[in-house]
Amino acid sequence: MNVSFIGSGNVATHLAMAFYQAGFNIEQICSHTEENAKTLASQVGAGFLTKVGALKPVDLVVVSVKDDAIALVLRQLKGIQATIVHTSGATPLNVFNGFFESYGVLYPLQTFSKSVNVDFKKVPLCIEAVNDKVLNLLITIGKTLSNNVRHVSSEDRKQLHLAAVFACNFTNHMYAVGKEILEKANLSFDLLIPLIEQSTEKIKQYDPKQMQTGPAVRGDQKIMKAHMELLKDREDLKEMYDFLSKSIKKMHS
Amino acid sequence: MNVSFIGSGNVATHLAMAFYQAGFNIEQICSHTEENAKTLASQVGAGFLTKVGALKPVDLVVVSVKDDAIALVLRQLKGIQATIVHTSGATPLNVFNGFFESYGVLYPLQTFSKSVNVDFKKVPLCIEAVNDKVLNLLITIGKTLSNNVRHVSSEDRKQLHLAAVFACNFTNHMYAVGKEILEKANLSFDLLIPLIEQSTEKIKQYDPKQMQTGPAVRGDQKIMKAHMELLKDREDLKEMYDFLSKSIKKMHS
Repeated sequence: MNVSFIGSGNVATHLAMAFYQAGFNIEQICSHTEENAKTLASQVGAGFLTKVGALKPVDLVVVSVKDDAIALVLRQLKGIQATIVHTSGATPLNVFNGFFESYGVLYPLQTFSKSVNVDFKKVPLCIEAVNDKVLNLLITIGKTLSNNVRHVSSEDRKQLHLAAVFACNFTNHMYAVGKEILEKANLSFDLLIPLIEQSTEKIKQYDPKQMQTGPAVRGDQKIMKAHMELLKDREDLKEMYDFLSKSIKKMHS
Repeated sequence: MNVSFIGSGNVATHLAMAFYQAGFNIEQICSHTEENAKTLASQVGAGFLTKVGALKPVDLVVVSVKDDAIALVLRQLKGIQATIVHTSGATPLNVFNGFFESYGVLYPLQTFSKSVNVDFKKVPLCIEAVNDKVLNLLITIGKTLSNNVRHVSSEDRKQLHLAAVFACNFTNHMYAVGKEILEKANLSFDLLIPLIEQSTEKIKQYDPKQMQTGPAVRGDQKIMKAHMELLKDREDLKEMYDFLSKSIKKMHS
């Protein structure tokens, strides 16, 4: 089966690598950023190009670009004889309407950075398709990439994506803020790693709400006041501390 | 060496277990919650009591109670012939001033829930003491409990504790919010676990700021707007989404 990719960002890179490692032939990588297209193409033994007009005929085209750009790319691909999928959590299936006959979604629910390895076999792969035939095709393909393939509707995918922003993006920002605080005090972020690991371990087995610890859930006003005092030169973080502490209290009231 | 504990909460429980497993004799567990004192005492082969007045003579007393209660407990212990430590990240060493001669702090930088196992050998143990003699004693004791013993000043301990609130307590709250969103949509929180695990893996090796992903750091207004729309019935979460997205943008501007 021949596959081409539109896009060369974090998701495109990891997904193309997963296809490649599963034995698919990657035909071309198309990206307006030539440098990125070239890099990814060389990793998966593919050709590269910067304009979709020169795409060779393939069985599957994976469109893995920013959400804003999906509709534009689809317009350019109109009429192509291939199954087309996008990889977005936030864009519904109906973005394909009127452009193609065989289409679907292949959304890997994971955080991808080019430089960081991912065990793709463990990535939940959320699949949706225009009809049962394409759904079965995508599920068959999906199972060669991951052991965790799910049929997920556009509506559910949106909710998953939203929840992932809280559980991953905002969480990572909390790590970044923690690091900032420690760096200002000349302390190493490494000191927090066992704590962060344990927090992750806990919620693999237990309800995160039940596992909440810290001054806010204990209602320890004295410590919260002292922490806000420590943040007196960082109005933004002080406000964040206050906001999130109140949100914890509310959830547990 | 004989050790008694004042307190029977999450920290007292895990610390007493660590002392017990390291071969210390736990003499007594004292807590105003008799049930908890009894439970912990039975786990570490100790006696239990509810009032500090009846403490037997020991070498070390570990005061592991809420920050608000530390000073009160110390007043009750005044004049006791033992080394006294507290286990708080937020209370400075000088809380002991005038009460005792041999005292210090033994702060385990970890999130503890009674029901969840912790590999105590990996817990950063932050130690401070009134003088070098007590410091050396506490470091020697600490090394039997953990492979990660550090000498940390009151000022640094406060900053560590503050950073830990962001990196652990607030992070856990994000998980809880993510779960709430998924439950409302009848989706399983398990779908997020690979994502959460990967987020943790990343920051063990890379700077969390550099690892930030998601719509806010990409400046993807369309998705952020769509997410806020999904949260239209949850004004509090909508506000949180907006607040944290802006904070991410600010950090990366």
